[in-house]
Amino acid sequence: MAATLLSALLVEILIPVAALIGMVFALIQWFLVSRVSVGGGQASINNGYDQSLLDDEEGYDDAEAVALCAEIQNAISEGAESFLITEYQYLGIFMAVFSVFIFLFLGSVGGFSTKWVSCKANPSELCAPPLANALFSTVAFILGALTSTLSGYLGMKIATYANARTTLEARKGVGEAFIVAFRAGSVMGFLLAANGLIVLFIAIVLFKLYYGNDWTGLYESIAGYGLGGSSVALFGRVGGGIYTKAADVGADLVGKVERNIPEDDPRNPAVIADNVGDNVGDIAGMGADLFGSFAESSCAALVVSSISSFGADRDFVAMSFPLLISSAGIVVCLITTIFATDLFVIKSVKEIEPSLKRQLVISTVLMTLAIAAVCYLALPSTFTINVVGHQPKVVKNWKLFFCVGSGLWAGLIIGYTTEYFTSNAYQPVRDVADSCRTGAATNVIFGLALGYKSVIIPVLAIAVAIFLSFSLAAMYGIAVAALGMLSTLATGLAIDAYGPISDNAGGIAEMAGMPHKVRERTDALDAAGNTTAAIGKGFAIGSAALVSLALFGAFVSRAGIAVVDVIQPKEFVGLIVGAMLPYWFSAMTMKSVGKAALAMVEEVRRQFNTIPGLMEGTVKPDYKRCVKISTDASLREMIPPGALVMLTPLIVGTLFGSSTLAGLLAGALVSGVQIAISASNTGGAWDNAKKYIEVCASDHARSLGPKGSDAHKAAVIGDTVGDPLKDTSGPSLNILIKLMAVESLVFAPFFAAHGGIFFKWLNI
Amino acid sequence: MAATLLSALLVEILIPVAALIGMVFALIQWFLVSRVSVGGGQASINNGYDQSLLDDEEGYDDAEAVALCAEIQNAISEGAESFLITEYQYLGIFMAVFSVFIFLFLGSVGGFSTKWVSCKANPSELCAPPLANALFSTVAFILGALTSTLSGYLGMKIATYANARTTLEARKGVGEAFIVAFRAGSVMGFLLAANGLIVLFIAIVLFKLYYGNDWTGLYESIAGYGLGGSSVALFGRVGGGIYTKAADVGADLVGKVERNIPEDDPRNPAVIADNVGDNVGDIAGMGADLFGSFAESSCAALVVSSISSFGADRDFVAMSFPLLISSAGIVVCLITTIFATDLFVIKSVKEIEPSLKRQLVISTVLMTLAIAAVCYLALPSTFTINVVGHQPKVVKNWKLFFCVGSGLWAGLIIGYTTEYFTSNAYQPVRDVADSCRTGAATNVIFGLALGYKSVIIPVLAIAVAIFLSFSLAAMYGIAVAALGMLSTLATGLAIDAYGPISDNAGGIAEMAGMPHKVRERTDALDAAGNTTAAIGKGFAIGSAALVSLALFGAFVSRAGIAVVDVIQPKEFVGLIVGAMLPYWFSAMTMKSVGKAALAMVEEVRRQFNTIPGLMEGTVKPDYKRCVKISTDASLREMIPPGALVMLTPLIVGTLFGSSTLAGLLAGALVSGVQIAISASNTGGAWDNAKKYIEVCASDHARSLGPKGSDAHKAAVIGDTVGDPLKDTSGPSLNILIKLMAVESLVFAPFFAAHGGIFFKWLNI
Repeated sequence: MAATLLSALLVEILIPVAALIGMVFALIQWFLVSRVSVGGGQASINNGYDQSLLDDEEGYDDAEAVALCAEIQNAISEGAESFLITEYQYLGIFMAVFSVFIFLFLGSVGGFSTKWVSCKANPSELCAPPLANALFSTVAFILGALTSTLSGYLGMKIATYANARTTLEARKGVGEAFIVAFRAGSVMGFLLAANGLIVLFIAIVLFKLYYGNDWTGLYESIAGYGLGGSSVALFGRVGGGIYTKAADVGADLVGKVERNIPEDDPRNPAVIADNVGDNVGDIAGMGADLFGSFAESSCAALVVSSISSFGADRDFVAMSFPLLISSAGIVVCLITTIFATDLFVIKSVKEIEPSLKRQLVISTVLMTLAIAAVCYLALPSTFTINVVGHQPKVVKNWKLFFCVGSGLWAGLIIGYTTEYFTSNAYQPVRDVADSCRTGAATNVIFGLALGYKSVIIPVLAIAVAIFLSFSLAAMYGIAVAALGMLSTLATGLAIDAYGPISDNAGGIAEMAGMPHKVRERTDALDAAGNTTAAIGKGFAIGSAALVSLALFGAFVSRAGIAVVDVIQPKEFVGLIVGAMLPYWFSAMTMKSVGKAALAMVEEVRRQFNTIPGLMEGTVKPDYKRCVKISTDASLREMIPPGALVMLTPLIVGTLFGSSTLAGLLAGALVSGVQIAISASNTGGAWDNAKKYIEVCASDHARSLGPKGSDAHKAAVIGDTVGDPLKDTSGPSLNILIKLMAVESLVFAPFFAAHGGIFFKWLNI
Repeated sequence: MAATLLSALLVEILIPVAALIGMVFALIQWFLVSRVSVGGGQASINNGYDQSLLDDEEGYDDAEAVALCAEIQNAISEGAESFLITEYQYLGIFMAVFSVFIFLFLGSVGGFSTKWVSCKANPSELCAPPLANALFSTVAFILGALTSTLSGYLGMKIATYANARTTLEARKGVGEAFIVAFRAGSVMGFLLAANGLIVLFIAIVLFKLYYGNDWTGLYESIAGYGLGGSSVALFGRVGGGIYTKAADVGADLVGKVERNIPEDDPRNPAVIADNVGDNVGDIAGMGADLFGSFAESSCAALVVSSISSFGADRDFVAMSFPLLISSAGIVVCLITTIFATDLFVIKSVKEIEPSLKRQLVISTVLMTLAIAAVCYLALPSTFTINVVGHQPKVVKNWKLFFCVGSGLWAGLIIGYTTEYFTSNAYQPVRDVADSCRTGAATNVIFGLALGYKSVIIPVLAIAVAIFLSFSLAAMYGIAVAALGMLSTLATGLAIDAYGPISDNAGGIAEMAGMPHKVRERTDALDAAGNTTAAIGKGFAIGSAALVSLALFGAFVSRAGIAVVDVIQPKEFVGLIVGAMLPYWFSAMTMKSVGKAALAMVEEVRRQFNTIPGLMEGTVKPDYKRCVKISTDASLREMIPPGALVMLTPLIVGTLFGSSTLAGLLAGALVSGVQIAISASNTGGAWDNAKKYIEVCASDHARSLGPKGSDAHKAAVIGDTVGDPLKDTSGPSLNILIKLMAVESLVFAPFFAAHGGIFFKWLNI
């Protein structure tokens, strides 16, 4: 056993300290955001902007607008909170039921015996009884679910706290507004990263008190944490996604297309629901999703290493390698954030996108150094990774540097590719915009083609990262590659959350009747936000691919499968059916959005037709009914796709056994990644093609625009089609592939013991 | 060695006799079609329809219309012929180059030695030198390519011969027109099935003169026949698909959307190109595609059985089992066709779809009996199938009945599911039509969701067929399951070809200014044709999935791969990159259609704007320029996707070796099937949703229509988006998955000998 340079005690100090630093930094950012007051006219004047700059619009009363901002912010915040709380009630029921499932299924493996048994790997040692594993897996599941819930909720609170503040700062200038939105994103990023890390760490430390030397049992139980995280993320993504797009599509179809009023116009009854949607879908859903990825990749790495030499040697420092990578990531992201908030000041609109891209580059470069340090300090110079049915793989510590690094850099490549395909600064989106010349049909054809094409480089980047890390350190390599991609999570989330916050800020500016200049600034922030949202989704999908593969690897290890041979009938059938599941799931979620949007359209039309004075702006619409339609639809419609994802591994594993399930997971993974990437990029490209035509910033764009031209109408149709693709079905697919894998991992002992009853009955 | 009931001599007589029967039957059908004269007014009066029936339209001169029909038919026929001949010149170059490739690559395996070597399987016997295999594979490749070319060309000739005749018969009634279109489809179906069978049979008999007892070498060389067939099909599908959709989309975008003139209006300059496109894309492309499937599944079955007990025992009767199944299929389809043409006479529009569906059921039921007979007569009661790296599988002859039958019945299920999702007689298409109420965006969202959903049952049917036949008879089971699905090829092709012929008939009726009643009848034929076209595509995709898997199995056998383990880096990377290829390919083909359509739009607009009197119908448009634009675009644009498909297996096999290539094939297969099915069904559904609104046959449809309503405009956009999906990218994907597999099979010895140089260099 080779020694590590760090001591176990130091590790036990470093991890919580890193988490603490992250939290304190988040609180500082929050404090800075909170200094922007939305408390009415007086405070806003103290904010120091130059009133004369905004005097150009007639009849504009700043104090009134500020008060309106505060009011709208409250409405959005209340709507989001009430939706999330209702959603969490549903989730509570689901969690309770599923906890019982986990306990019963896993407990049944050892016949609910409470006796310690001799370990499989080393019969001279004692391992915890399956009943204990069932209990601790259940506890870990609940912990993961609660942490995920908290992550989503906190994100929403921060975003709704910062949106009106961003609007108000936009009166001073684009740089000021940018800083507020970005700081708010950082609060969410750091809180999530720190929370996820500390809860996982504490769970390990506490579980260890019971498990003692049975590290395999300990870390396998911890896998429940990942399952909990992703289950909540599933419902968050799907429910939130349906909510936000039902409102968005419904608002646009009547408002923009039929009534010809601008986006976010306060006369549109669905406008509040639309803004609430950004917060519950893009913010809370994304937060839960990325927290899930973080939790799962950590768990996958822990499960694989617990049955390898780290676990056999009881090497706590090396075992904690995944957590140390995440700890280092928090510090790296902190430094990176300071570059954006303090070192480079944004002065013009053009600097926004480069500044956000710079964040990606800086964090990646710094993190590369940090990874080298962690590999050097926390790993023994040589160790082995066990591979079921094969010789253990001997790994040198520097090889892990390449594993983690390949994931990290693949993430950067995915980020840049996504930007290229979704930003209207480049040719692909401009081609799509140009195709609007001949109408909506060519726009849709070109957009779909763009989405398909945008898959190539990310998949190749993922493939290279997989090949490298797989070859160097087997499934452990994949797991830490995933961690590498997620190590800059705090920065990634900050960039990502920035988008919906700016989007909301624009909406509030419009609704509060802010001057034209302010809206121009928030629009610019929002356009950059569309691209960063797509980049964030690219990261989420890329990391989901790596995470799923790592979980898949951990599953086959735990289920004792030596080979997943796709030239065998059981595996191949699993593979092809698995590849079908993302389509089934997408069909459900897209149809749900469609149906909910139709209901919203009916309601919005009804209000325009029956409320006199609404179009003239003298009477307020009934926002609450629209909020209710979105809420009801999303809660009702999230159940079937949720059931598909949660039940498929259980049914397949129980009826057809672990081999078929392994094929199914591989099929869902390789097929789901493609649809997810293409769906999210297609949607992002359509959105920005529309913005490109609206903004009229070049001769080419002017030849297509302005707003209301035929080309613009065609672009709006593309944008609307893209909404459910990019914000509902696409991002939910990440969770489909991750969740099925982590669920299989958690239930692996059950499938190994009792699975495949259909084939057993057929005697195959 | 168990004996078969049939003797070898009888087999050598039965197969060519069956082919001959098919050909004679095709000629009889042709003769019956040719009795409808398009020779001008006098002949048409002799055709015996009641002139008074058509007298209701003022100023209609029947003799003039008939002469016009003949003229239009000539223009379409000439356009199609000139395109195909140009395409075949390109193909000739490709075939010459690729023949050299095959010869050099395969010849290099044994260092171009001409010495007979001791066989691998049985060293006491002598096997033909690799150089001979290279030569005969090349010859088989050329034979396959020529047969495929002939199949496509004949199909086009027959279809363009029958289209105007269908129009003329529509004056008498819908039943008469249906019979002409269906008979013409049968000509194509039977000629193709018989041709494919007889050429393959003759090749085997002739090759045997050289190979003698080296059956492994013999049948492995024969695999080149499949490669040749599918290579031509690739360019046919892609080139033809781009041609037809560039013309169709271009014609619709200007004609229907901008100028508000009906489809197929003779004033539209792109209208001839559009009708030519139906013949070169849907007819010639589909013919080549299905011929390829037939050739490949036969070859896959032959390769697998040649290395099993059939080959080892030199049991020519059992070896010929695949050909006997196809022979029986021809006879079964002959009987089935008589049901449609002579036993049940179509009297009203409503009977068209049931009649076509009845064809599917009758042929499937009869074929089931035929399969039982062939299994009983041509197979020894027990035999073994060799599986590389595993124990040989002992198979009883009745098990093969279930293998072939499972493929056959899976085909029927796919057919029925496709009908359910694409016919406007059912709820799914009506829901899509209903979503047009809120505009094009919801129409596109609902259509995409429908396509995704329509994947579920076909994939499950394929999965069950795969599991059953795989479990019963390993890869041989899969190959004969594919043959089972294709055994009713002649009927399937007849049903499929019927669609474009009716579509053309409608176009000719419109262009010739036929009375309203005639157009109503051809429209009804065409609507049924949309559904049957989708069913045909469903068959093509389903059989492609089985064929690819069978070829994949034959490839791993030939390459000597015992396990394709997706938890190994090489295989997994292959899997995920393979799953990406259909997206890359679709991006290329869709963008090609989009670009070509834009060019067409420009030209059509130019003609409308610059040719005075065109809109008024006093001056004829310049049809030829539009034909040229489609021709040039399709020939130019078919090269990159063609290169992607043809080069990927060569590059991957050479650089990364057989294991990665095996993963790639599996990934492309499981991912490609889903996109292909969803693309073709989405497109079919949009097309029929539009027709549903146009025809206004129910209260619901009337609330959406008529032509020109907002809902109809939204439906037209969906239809246009669907065009490249259902007729270009979707059906081309069949060929992608088949062709990569058969190419890998043919080049397997080269990859086994020299492949994987990158990994060898890296020393992995």
